[in-house]
Amino acid sequence: MLSKSQIKLITSLQQKKYRDISGLFVAEGPKVINEFIDAQFEVHSLYALENADIQQNNAEIVSKEELKKISFLKNANSSLAVFKISKEKNISEKGLIVALDAIRDPGNLGTIIRLCDWFGVHQIICSKDTVDCYNPKVIQATMGSISRVNVVYTDLSETIENTTIPVYGACMEGSNVYRKELPQNAIIVLGNEGKGISEEIMNLLSEKITIPKFGNLQKTESLNVAMATSILLSEFKRSTEK
Amino acid sequence: MLSKSQIKLITSLQQKKYRDISGLFVAEGPKVINEFIDAQFEVHSLYALENADIQQNNAEIVSKEELKKISFLKNANSSLAVFKISKEKNISEKGLIVALDAIRDPGNLGTIIRLCDWFGVHQIICSKDTVDCYNPKVIQATMGSISRVNVVYTDLSETIENTTIPVYGACMEGSNVYRKELPQNAIIVLGNEGKGISEEIMNLLSEKITIPKFGNLQKTESLNVAMATSILLSEFKRSTEK
Repeated sequence: MLSKSQIKLITSLQQKKYRDISGLFVAEGPKVINEFIDAQFEVHSLYALENADIQQNNAEIVSKEELKKISFLKNANSSLAVFKISKEKNISEKGLIVALDAIRDPGNLGTIIRLCDWFGVHQIICSKDTVDCYNPKVIQATMGSISRVNVVYTDLSETIENTTIPVYGACMEGSNVYRKELPQNAIIVLGNEGKGISEEIMNLLSEKITIPKFGNLQKTESLNVAMATSILLSEFKRSTEK
Repeated sequence: MLSKSQIKLITSLQQKKYRDISGLFVAEGPKVINEFIDAQFEVHSLYALENADIQQNNAEIVSKEELKKISFLKNANSSLAVFKISKEKNISEKGLIVALDAIRDPGNLGTIIRLCDWFGVHQIICSKDTVDCYNPKVIQATMGSISRVNVVYTDLSETIENTTIPVYGACMEGSNVYRKELPQNAIIVLGNEGKGISEEIMNLLSEKITIPKFGNLQKTESLNVAMATSILLSEFKRSTEK
């Protein structure tokens, strides 16, 4: 049976503050949990219903009611794991790097991490006010792909100021990305959902790029940041496939 | 003050059954409502807080508590409108047409409609088991762009069997989309979130196309259907931008 202190620890991990203090985060469901185990994340504790499809056999068996108590999901899955947050690795200036300037929506960050995994982009640098990648909604939205992408929180302007590779920013008024020769080593900056890239970062870009709009020029909404990421990563990667 | 029958009608419109019977649907918030008014959708009724930024001045003024009662959102906006569902227009075989085979998630359909609007694709055909485009979650996710895209529900196999333009399907094992010459008139089929394109439709495709995966070949999750749509529409449209 789950102790009060176990329940208290796990539910506290919904908040960044307690994830920072404890160095722990929660993942739910066999698919996501198994991805983290495969990626060598250290298991702190593991809770599962009797027949959960979990690789490790040292899970503490819990009842449906107990799982419901500790789950962050509307409908609890069959298992929940607490993992240790692994150390951020240094960023290397090779290949594509996605830089996120104040992305706030956990679903967007989760989708962007999944896209990076698909396109073989292993490095994401985030401004300090970007949503935490160990936020439970991010973890679940990535479907485990976060275990294969190195996400680093940093002073974004400083990092960009000191890089030796070109820095592209997704803007509303840049050059048409379809007409560009794009390099294989580059940083691609995507900005906040409402405000776009901050002025400070905008001044540091090597080039502003735009996905042209084909629809009704006045009315059409801007592209959501995750959709823009998918199109830009596709553009940067497609040239290596010819 | 709202009458009981008004409240009953509006709340019933969360369900497809009652939208079908009444021919009505709900949109919330000035941005989305104004888009539908601009697109000449007929207003059935309109409810707004005193200072809501709504184009029409014949809104019935309601209190916050009343709006909360009829709103489908977690946090009610400042206004809610009931519109008449407009007649589906016929599909013309010109330009790109997106065909959806059993898309179930309202968020995905909403995102796909928004993408079509961005890329100037004005026609979407949906299998009858695709989520209803007047579902409140779809309406809100499109941010009004559904008012500029014609969404038609139909027998998808029959439509595809009778078309004269080429039909491309997004599959896991098709030709590399980056290496294809893509036509300007075509149907692009996207399949169900879990199962992909049904066997019946698969047999009717002119060509199977694939977005190649650059990441860890075994582990990486498949692309979400909305992300796949964004990349494919970008590929079909980019050639017109050269």
